[in-house]
Amino acid sequence: MKYGHFDDLKNEYVIERPDTPYPWINYLGSKNFFSLISNTAGGYNFYKDASKRRLTRYRYNNVPVDNGGRYYYIYEDGKFFSPTWAPTYSNLDDYKCRHGLGYTIIESNNNNLKTELKFFVPENDNTELHHFKIKNLADKTRNLKLFSLLEFCLYDALDDMTNFQRNFNTAEVEIDGATIYHKTEYRERRNHYTFFTVNQDIAGFDTDRESFLGLYNSFANPAAVEDGQLHNSVAHGWSPIAAHQLDFSLSPGEEKEFIFQFGYVEIESKADKWSGPNSINKQPAEALIEKYNTPTKVNNAFTELEDYWQDLLSGFKLEHADPRLERMVNTWNQYQCMVTYNLARSASYFESGISRGIGFRDSNQDLLGSAHLIPKRVKTRLLDLAATQFEDGSAYHQYQPLTKKGNDKIGSGFNDDPLWLIFATAAYLKETGDYSILTEEVPFNSGKKASLFDHLVASFEHVINNLGPHDLPLIGHADWNDCLNLSAFSEKPGESFQTVSNKSDSPAESIMIAGMFLTVGPDYIKICQQQNKQDLAEKAKKAISTMKQAVNKYGRDQEWFLRAYDYFGDKIGAKGNQYAEIFIEPQGFCIMGGLGLDDGFASKTLAAVNQHLNSEHGLMILNPTIKEYQLNLGEISSYPPGYKENGAIFCHNNPWIIIAETIVGNGERAFEYYSKIAPAYREEISDLHRTEPYVYSQMIAGQDAADFGEAKNSWLTGTAAWNFVAISQWILGIRPEFEGLKIDPVIPASWDGFKVKRKFRDTDFEITVKNPDHVSQGIKKILVNGQKIKGQVIKDFKQKKVEVEVIMG
Amino acid sequence: MKYGHFDDLKNEYVIERPDTPYPWINYLGSKNFFSLISNTAGGYNFYKDASKRRLTRYRYNNVPVDNGGRYYYIYEDGKFFSPTWAPTYSNLDDYKCRHGLGYTIIESNNNNLKTELKFFVPENDNTELHHFKIKNLADKTRNLKLFSLLEFCLYDALDDMTNFQRNFNTAEVEIDGATIYHKTEYRERRNHYTFFTVNQDIAGFDTDRESFLGLYNSFANPAAVEDGQLHNSVAHGWSPIAAHQLDFSLSPGEEKEFIFQFGYVEIESKADKWSGPNSINKQPAEALIEKYNTPTKVNNAFTELEDYWQDLLSGFKLEHADPRLERMVNTWNQYQCMVTYNLARSASYFESGISRGIGFRDSNQDLLGSAHLIPKRVKTRLLDLAATQFEDGSAYHQYQPLTKKGNDKIGSGFNDDPLWLIFATAAYLKETGDYSILTEEVPFNSGKKASLFDHLVASFEHVINNLGPHDLPLIGHADWNDCLNLSAFSEKPGESFQTVSNKSDSPAESIMIAGMFLTVGPDYIKICQQQNKQDLAEKAKKAISTMKQAVNKYGRDQEWFLRAYDYFGDKIGAKGNQYAEIFIEPQGFCIMGGLGLDDGFASKTLAAVNQHLNSEHGLMILNPTIKEYQLNLGEISSYPPGYKENGAIFCHNNPWIIIAETIVGNGERAFEYYSKIAPAYREEISDLHRTEPYVYSQMIAGQDAADFGEAKNSWLTGTAAWNFVAISQWILGIRPEFEGLKIDPVIPASWDGFKVKRKFRDTDFEITVKNPDHVSQGIKKILVNGQKIKGQVIKDFKQKKVEVEVIMG
Repeated sequence: MKYGHFDDLKNEYVIERPDTPYPWINYLGSKNFFSLISNTAGGYNFYKDASKRRLTRYRYNNVPVDNGGRYYYIYEDGKFFSPTWAPTYSNLDDYKCRHGLGYTIIESNNNNLKTELKFFVPENDNTELHHFKIKNLADKTRNLKLFSLLEFCLYDALDDMTNFQRNFNTAEVEIDGATIYHKTEYRERRNHYTFFTVNQDIAGFDTDRESFLGLYNSFANPAAVEDGQLHNSVAHGWSPIAAHQLDFSLSPGEEKEFIFQFGYVEIESKADKWSGPNSINKQPAEALIEKYNTPTKVNNAFTELEDYWQDLLSGFKLEHADPRLERMVNTWNQYQCMVTYNLARSASYFESGISRGIGFRDSNQDLLGSAHLIPKRVKTRLLDLAATQFEDGSAYHQYQPLTKKGNDKIGSGFNDDPLWLIFATAAYLKETGDYSILTEEVPFNSGKKASLFDHLVASFEHVINNLGPHDLPLIGHADWNDCLNLSAFSEKPGESFQTVSNKSDSPAESIMIAGMFLTVGPDYIKICQQQNKQDLAEKAKKAISTMKQAVNKYGRDQEWFLRAYDYFGDKIGAKGNQYAEIFIEPQGFCIMGGLGLDDGFASKTLAAVNQHLNSEHGLMILNPTIKEYQLNLGEISSYPPGYKENGAIFCHNNPWIIIAETIVGNGERAFEYYSKIAPAYREEISDLHRTEPYVYSQMIAGQDAADFGEAKNSWLTGTAAWNFVAISQWILGIRPEFEGLKIDPVIPASWDGFKVKRKFRDTDFEITVKNPDHVSQGIKKILVNGQKIKGQVIKDFKQKKVEVEVIMG
Repeated sequence: MKYGHFDDLKNEYVIERPDTPYPWINYLGSKNFFSLISNTAGGYNFYKDASKRRLTRYRYNNVPVDNGGRYYYIYEDGKFFSPTWAPTYSNLDDYKCRHGLGYTIIESNNNNLKTELKFFVPENDNTELHHFKIKNLADKTRNLKLFSLLEFCLYDALDDMTNFQRNFNTAEVEIDGATIYHKTEYRERRNHYTFFTVNQDIAGFDTDRESFLGLYNSFANPAAVEDGQLHNSVAHGWSPIAAHQLDFSLSPGEEKEFIFQFGYVEIESKADKWSGPNSINKQPAEALIEKYNTPTKVNNAFTELEDYWQDLLSGFKLEHADPRLERMVNTWNQYQCMVTYNLARSASYFESGISRGIGFRDSNQDLLGSAHLIPKRVKTRLLDLAATQFEDGSAYHQYQPLTKKGNDKIGSGFNDDPLWLIFATAAYLKETGDYSILTEEVPFNSGKKASLFDHLVASFEHVINNLGPHDLPLIGHADWNDCLNLSAFSEKPGESFQTVSNKSDSPAESIMIAGMFLTVGPDYIKICQQQNKQDLAEKAKKAISTMKQAVNKYGRDQEWFLRAYDYFGDKIGAKGNQYAEIFIEPQGFCIMGGLGLDDGFASKTLAAVNQHLNSEHGLMILNPTIKEYQLNLGEISSYPPGYKENGAIFCHNNPWIIIAETIVGNGERAFEYYSKIAPAYREEISDLHRTEPYVYSQMIAGQDAADFGEAKNSWLTGTAAWNFVAISQWILGIRPEFEGLKIDPVIPASWDGFKVKRKFRDTDFEITVKNPDHVSQGIKKILVNGQKIKGQVIKDFKQKKVEVEVIMG
């Protein structure tokens, strides 16, 4: 069952009924000021850091589930309703929510009042605009009141929800005309405030939540709205809000427009904080208000935003017979990659924005999907990440975005982390050809001076220096699978598996890290060679050769690659084990690392994956699921079977198998796996899938779960980046290499072909792939601007525009 | 305006309308299992630790304000309502909430259905009972459905509200007949579960919140209740709840009773965890269910509870002409002292139960109010507190109740902390005469062996060893006023004033600690002497004499005692200062410490307090309020004027002045101050006061606040203990001393007298105070069992019962 449709022309997902199976959200803002907004206008705002600079209040896991946002009430003759459905949940004669790129439009019609609310954050300002249009479709004049509402957060999101003995005493506001300023703690150490304004004279305001709502009323029935008159309350402590009242009439057919604006201001110099006693410096706010105080100005800003996104996504455009594939590749997957770049794992409707900083592993992977979109920002992020690395190559597992300092609570010891820095740097180099990044100075966490290249060497050698009894990489605290805890045995209820460390001497080894090492190894060698470090290249070659031997000797089970050796030296992910005979991760990475390609073991492995892990809804992370808690496996066994790391379809690693399938040339299976989890392909089962049909979720419940096929944790997942890599570079086969752009599609044989426009190192490639013989793989010829080239890599292009014709066969 | 009345016969506060100015709550349970319950059945449960073992979910600062609890819905003919008003907020024809000692009864009548819901936790079990009675007052038979609802918390309260990417996958339940078991994480490391049951066959159940409510419905309109039929849903992840459905009919005049029970079970041995695959061991739960599955059994348990409280509070009973004073002294103040003993500062409707452990300073003060009630438990707590002390006498500022380990996050360095241990130990000794506690072994935090007496020595000498430039005690991180931060200058927004430590070399000194030292000094000397440590006693005498000189030389301002010297050596709390010329704390403690009594400075000081700090609603903590942030004063200046430590009536320290007034013999003023903040005296202004009229609040907004007279942070405050000390020991003057029971009333001259029954060291004293000459202070004679005694201290009593007649004059 669907709840809307894709509008591919406008790059929108259009939700047609408000009661989606879970709130379906969008993100506004892409620099410093961010908004989460649901299809019924729920959500919140923050500046840079969702934990430490939360601007509006939101209550997770509330009842109703999505309760709190930027709300409006339209009042007429003693009755009122919300044009965004929430929070009054009144029936609307018509409702549409258009989630677009960086904006959300909610349209409604109720009793012949037609409204449109467009929400967006303009490209270069820290403010959320609400462009409100209301039109009278009836043939009589209507006397109306419009009430606005948002609730301020006292900045520190965690403190805001726990420390009431202080916080109920601190809130302060100022009201100036139609502008309500929230200035809690500005009197002391803060140099920032927010404001909510409207470009119109107001008939009243409220800033004290209780005065507006009443103590025992909900957002659905504010006492002041029931009364039809706000109280001009001034908040002192308790819970500050901003609510406006606009009284107006609409003659038949008349439309009115209002611009509401919720802005954030920082005052740089202490000397400029005040304009008078208790009166904050409003000048920067007034400038921002002035900048967006007419529909024309707002329309112009919106056009700029549209241009920004159009330009950004123009770098990769697919033409294909299947519109679902087009909308994934051209719009939604890339859009999600941008959001994961911006947000990391901080704030979604599943991530509360409080506990997690920017993950070393996570963000390096995210960069794989954004290097072609925003190479300059990717460069900056790479250097930020490198700066949290220790001299031995290990790294802080997370860092805080406001301070860029590593998170001591989680610490280090995740032994896959170092290698991800090489993955991401290689992706950046392949995309841009900008080797200057390698010599950028970026100190280690200790302060020791180093180049980025030094960091890569430390990363690579961290694996070499941390081998276990089978010459395989020590897993450390955990590898990519945070929940496979082989080096910590937890028996205390509630203890974090991520921080307990009672087996720090553990000899547990990870075949997945071995596979990663072999996958990234060749790139690392090329980087060393480019830097004229032949000795390091030679050392790496030797290490790779040794690692290959080790995996082939100790890392293979009968039909697939083992997952690991545990603390006791026992095999994890081996045939005959009671639980978790086979894990997905090493199968993907060992084949990406080139193992088993010469002796058929790769194909055998992938057949086993297909037999044991494939399901109607995608590839499960392991099988059989683990039925009881296993001290030697840790958190993975803490989940009920079929959920999360215990046998769900953990979407993040499905593309690793997809890529492996392309490596062995199986385009059918590669695309089968791709389409099983791609959200646009799951749109028809939205009632089962539940999360947004336009972005990936981290997880789909596995076959042992009660709700097999139900997705959770949408938006902020490495799934976005990896699937974009899988579809664009490996299935469509348009793959950046150090030497140039490689063309190597591995597709279902039924495809007639496809076209791709791709910006690559300042050149626009127009690539036409034809598949007259209906093969899955293989290139008959490649014509570049009409000239046949040797091999599959397009090198030495100087033109602004290059036409490429590819004939498969 | 009042919202109810005191029922003094039943020791209940009876709330007569549900829409109190703020939720008015009560506590159930007094050992390990605790419940917070509001007058509309909101609130939650926890076992031992509100942070780490939260059993039901509650959302603080929600909309509506008190949203979530143990809820019931009565359904008839397609309509339904809640007999506790919340969560449907339907109009009730009649409503009463009776908050009693350890129980709450909510009665309602709606459309001729009369209900009574009695909530309590039986004395010795970890379970909350709901005794539900429903009677048909109409003259026709009614076909009814009753729905129950509570929502489980996943134990760790903070994790429960932040970590959704995990928690939405872990929840598990089991259903067995009418019993719903919540067993999340029991599969792995937990050895505890909860259950919700009813003593009746059920017509349906739900355990998945969304199945019960619907995604976009609130607690006011659950979809399943609207349908009149539950869905028998089994929760897998998301949000587990327990809801029952009972279908029954009531003929005219018929009454039915149901027993609902929400229990907590721990399984001690791993071997006993399971009764079969995925089937938890239900045997202990079944025993508990059996124990309370009939009205008779529940009535018996309730009688036991009533007996427990009657017995507990029988130790101090006042007869007085003013019923307000009687109900404060006899019931509510003592009851609040018990709650502060049990809960410390962990969980109230202002304390979220997450951040704070048991405070060293807080709990030592709480013991002053509970030593006469539960001397054995006070002894245990004293030893627990001492165990978190360092060898130098300083102490962890907080410790965690589950582990009894000090809280590293807050650490040490609050230089008043050590002295509170002497205060509390002295109070225990004076109450019980049990000197054996002094030789109890209790190691320092380091593990070093020590007796409690060694701890007291370390405490006392910590002050002597930490003197500043004026020979006054160094304030350290802060003294009792946590917000007066003279040794840390914070410029970073959001930084905790309690943990920043950038001026650890600070020479800032506290005159308040000096006053405390002088107050507790004579008791300490007596304790040393009792322990035959003459050398320590002599050392203490000298130190006291030196301290007196120092305060008299450097601690006096012209008309009052200074508060402190700051980091720069400047005077804090001195006449002529722009802000905060006078602070309350040193005035109380320096006079309690005996200063200024011989030269009239004490009276002068108290006159100044009366002039500068007294207000309609009590004594403000300082004056004038601080209008801008002061780097050298810290958090105190972060509050808007009139709030909290910046000029509110901080009720905790009002009794220090009350006691000082009794010391100078001013019974009028002592009682004026007492009655200004005593909640029963403020009942008539409940609409302004807002918090419960039966317990103290930490704070009443001061005269510079927008809402002068509004109270906040009720229940968990040292105000309870100190006011009980002030009224019982200093105004009524029934004061335990080392030597015996001192009688020294200091009262308003208008009083004719009063009677007190007081249990003291296993003897029942019946004390009649007569005031024929209408004096404030002074004793003409004291007759003990008809025999006149010398002096005012009753010593050497051996009888079970002693009659005392006191003639003032």
